[in-house]
Amino acid sequence: MLGLMQDWPLTVDKIIDHAKNWHGHREVVTRSVEGPIVRTTYAEIHARAKRVSGVLKDWGIQKGDRVATLAWNTGRHMEVWYGIMGIGAVCHTLNPRLFPEQLIYIINHAEDKIIFVDLTFIPLLEAVLPHCPTVERVVVMTDELTMPATKLPGAECYEAILSGASGDIAWGEFEEGTACGLCYTSGTTGNPKGVLYSHRSNFIHTLLGMQSTVLGPSPSEVILPVVPMFHANAWGIAFAGPAGGTKLVMPGARMDGAAIYELIESEGVTFSAAVPTVWQGLLMHLREHKLQIPTVKKVLIGGSAVPESLIRAFNDEFGIEVLQGWGMTETSPVGSLSNMTPELAALPFEEQLKWRTKQGTPPLGVELKIKNVAGQDLPHDGHTYGRLMVKGPTIAGAYFRSDEKILDHEGFFDTGDVSTVDDHGFMQITDRAKDVIKSGGEWISSIEIENIAVGHPKVELAAVIGAAHPKWDERPVLVVKLKPGEPQDRQEHLDFLVGKIAKWWMPDDVVFVDDIPLGATGKVDKKLIRERMKDYVLPTAA
Amino acid sequence: MLGLMQDWPLTVDKIIDHAKNWHGHREVVTRSVEGPIVRTTYAEIHARAKRVSGVLKDWGIQKGDRVATLAWNTGRHMEVWYGIMGIGAVCHTLNPRLFPEQLIYIINHAEDKIIFVDLTFIPLLEAVLPHCPTVERVVVMTDELTMPATKLPGAECYEAILSGASGDIAWGEFEEGTACGLCYTSGTTGNPKGVLYSHRSNFIHTLLGMQSTVLGPSPSEVILPVVPMFHANAWGIAFAGPAGGTKLVMPGARMDGAAIYELIESEGVTFSAAVPTVWQGLLMHLREHKLQIPTVKKVLIGGSAVPESLIRAFNDEFGIEVLQGWGMTETSPVGSLSNMTPELAALPFEEQLKWRTKQGTPPLGVELKIKNVAGQDLPHDGHTYGRLMVKGPTIAGAYFRSDEKILDHEGFFDTGDVSTVDDHGFMQITDRAKDVIKSGGEWISSIEIENIAVGHPKVELAAVIGAAHPKWDERPVLVVKLKPGEPQDRQEHLDFLVGKIAKWWMPDDVVFVDDIPLGATGKVDKKLIRERMKDYVLPTAA
Repeated sequence: MLGLMQDWPLTVDKIIDHAKNWHGHREVVTRSVEGPIVRTTYAEIHARAKRVSGVLKDWGIQKGDRVATLAWNTGRHMEVWYGIMGIGAVCHTLNPRLFPEQLIYIINHAEDKIIFVDLTFIPLLEAVLPHCPTVERVVVMTDELTMPATKLPGAECYEAILSGASGDIAWGEFEEGTACGLCYTSGTTGNPKGVLYSHRSNFIHTLLGMQSTVLGPSPSEVILPVVPMFHANAWGIAFAGPAGGTKLVMPGARMDGAAIYELIESEGVTFSAAVPTVWQGLLMHLREHKLQIPTVKKVLIGGSAVPESLIRAFNDEFGIEVLQGWGMTETSPVGSLSNMTPELAALPFEEQLKWRTKQGTPPLGVELKIKNVAGQDLPHDGHTYGRLMVKGPTIAGAYFRSDEKILDHEGFFDTGDVSTVDDHGFMQITDRAKDVIKSGGEWISSIEIENIAVGHPKVELAAVIGAAHPKWDERPVLVVKLKPGEPQDRQEHLDFLVGKIAKWWMPDDVVFVDDIPLGATGKVDKKLIRERMKDYVLPTAA
Repeated sequence: MLGLMQDWPLTVDKIIDHAKNWHGHREVVTRSVEGPIVRTTYAEIHARAKRVSGVLKDWGIQKGDRVATLAWNTGRHMEVWYGIMGIGAVCHTLNPRLFPEQLIYIINHAEDKIIFVDLTFIPLLEAVLPHCPTVERVVVMTDELTMPATKLPGAECYEAILSGASGDIAWGEFEEGTACGLCYTSGTTGNPKGVLYSHRSNFIHTLLGMQSTVLGPSPSEVILPVVPMFHANAWGIAFAGPAGGTKLVMPGARMDGAAIYELIESEGVTFSAAVPTVWQGLLMHLREHKLQIPTVKKVLIGGSAVPESLIRAFNDEFGIEVLQGWGMTETSPVGSLSNMTPELAALPFEEQLKWRTKQGTPPLGVELKIKNVAGQDLPHDGHTYGRLMVKGPTIAGAYFRSDEKILDHEGFFDTGDVSTVDDHGFMQITDRAKDVIKSGGEWISSIEIENIAVGHPKVELAAVIGAAHPKWDERPVLVVKLKPGEPQDRQEHLDFLVGKIAKWWMPDDVVFVDDIPLGATGKVDKKLIRERMKDYVLPTAA
């Protein structure tokens, strides 16, 4: 027997409709790519998004067609985003930090028909576009006054096309499973893979994000999403902001400490979300200029593990709570959050840090397990490592145009991370599965050793990789890039680890290198390190 | 083109699974019907709900079968609730405040097969059950020590059946549209009507309720749902509590001020939800004993319009914010909430009251409109009255076993309320559509006049009804029940209204009565008043 409630498809056009109807005057403030601070409202964004839809319809864009953006977080980007999605086309957010050959690959793989581009990225697109035959048009997201000369064939000016467009366009009226957004992972192995979000998954993810323990948007908050819309949907803020009637402050192209501080100060930001490096930049700026940001109550940090020092600094110096989040493109991206329980919150702050540095618990709607190689569930004891597996309506079930089977027999997606879960339910990522070192049937976390090793005052960067060993299968090797002028002393780096890690985790060797390569997302590129060291032989294995 | 996210049906068994997995130690504290305070956890509730499912399966309960509860808010009621829903049976919450003949009607209409009953309601059920042929078994929700002698045929003891049950039962694995809960309206016209919730609607409603602007459950909160599970699902708290990992405090059979205070004080309640009369009772108790409840930050009040005096008293005397909510059985029930915007919050508190006494704005997922009789949208100007219409995935589309068409051409459900919406988006209910007085083509709100009239120091209760008038169609009549011993002076009640309502709203007559009848939910029963006054003739119409 079926229930008798209304059939109301969960489609994201209803999010911006809701914002227009109930929070129409609420502002979206942007540091424009052209420079000045510009202000708009949800009512205006709604009206202009309708006109974007009108233009796309005029150009023959159909349901399911891919329309791309290569753009910063701005009010205009939100207009384009909702304008594309509202008519059932797919908004493909291109990540400008990808290498040009990766951009070419994903534009062709997605068969994008139109690309909306910010001024900043015109040179990049000029280099890429000749290799992308499916792209019919390019729209430069600026007005006629600042429209540049460009080699882009038939480039259109955003404000010019909008001024002539009709906004009398119906949105929605398709099933909620309809494709809505497309975002490629910047995976370090093989080609990027496309995650094809549905209206349903984005709407449900918006509801997950609206929980008080996630983003908690409301008209009383002012949210600054530094995390880009091209990076896992700005962690859902471009949906949750309008859904909650929350003023958004969009940083445009500038994410340096001074720029972020200025927006926080002038717009009264209460909550912000960014990767650790952005927060490090802000922290340096605040300290250098002896500034405070009293309106900010909480910051969400994700994208990579949050250093304890950052959590402590925000708490001690600025009275700001750091909420750590974990997620990935394949999880829409909210996966887990480090919300303190009352038991943990009752501890002294220094003791809380043990949990605040973990990735925390999943919200309702995300099923999360750690499993061993045989696919069996592992205990929540805080020390047993396993593959981190997730399941839910906001988790990828397959990649776009790929036959790869990515779910296990229980329907769980393998995140590629290795983690523990403790008896408070707090998940902690200990390594990427491909980086974990298998030694004598046990696992050694390369990340844990790295995090300690990099704390040595003479070390600039450190990486730990597994090297082949005849008896133990693999043993850890510490790869160190020293600060300029520091002497190479193998033993002092090993001594530095003593007492901080298990004895059997102690690296068998230390290798000094001039350069530790970083990938597109600023993380150490261990694949490249392993390639460079493919002829390396462990002294203990010889 | 469809998105490629996982197919994960939104079913409510996943809510209690989530609570067990991530908040298994979090408590549910109950003032038991037997008397003592009893404590359990989400892990235990989960395990025992599985055994309830086992028992139901053993008894042949199939998907779609209706299993009823006649019970207070307790941990046991939650076990039964999830135990029924988990196997795809329908949990029919019986409202013990209905008249026995209404209970008989709805049990027969629903064809309930089993009824779980609290000790309190055994006499009521003994009277009702002989008229309910579909009921096969009754389970008394107590243990063997307190199991009473009862005339109920074949009554089972809850703890006895649970102790012998298997908990090895699979939940879910049916489509999300599957019926999940059944609740009948206590409408004042005609027979009660059944709202048949689906798993999908209840899950989405849970996500709506988890927003920081609605219930905002989290492990840091302690929520006391005074509003009963048999009354519009306890406003969703029996779902949102476990979903948010929130400690719940269940009041059982006692909702008097002393009992509620004791629970708040001993359990550290931070948030509670109830109808105005419960809060009036608590307020009297607090004042009388000069008590404070500093752990409570916010209370949600709904069910009927919240008196300004109550909002002011909680704010001024106890530093507690009153959040007013509007909803109904047909809306799951969250419809709108009086969250202050930053603009309104910046006003002095006395000025805020103009909005705090309104029913507020809808959350994402509830579409809300006011329409005129012709079905056209009316403006948000704060004074134009219209039929309050709602639409969404948590709104009824039809009544159980009824052919009545309840949605308009746009798919909106007519709430039967008349309201305004102002330019801040705040909805205010001005009357029930059937009580509004149509005078000269314009509408007069009976409720607004009543709310003022009842403030006269000599008045105990007041009602305003429309009486036929040859020229104006209807004119208002003020019906007054005086406090004991007060003299009948028609003019002083009219004078009391002068300057507080429009001149043309002024009642044409004042009628003094010995008794103003109240309905099952404590509201004035205007239908009965109109019946009693069916021979009344307006002096102005004579």
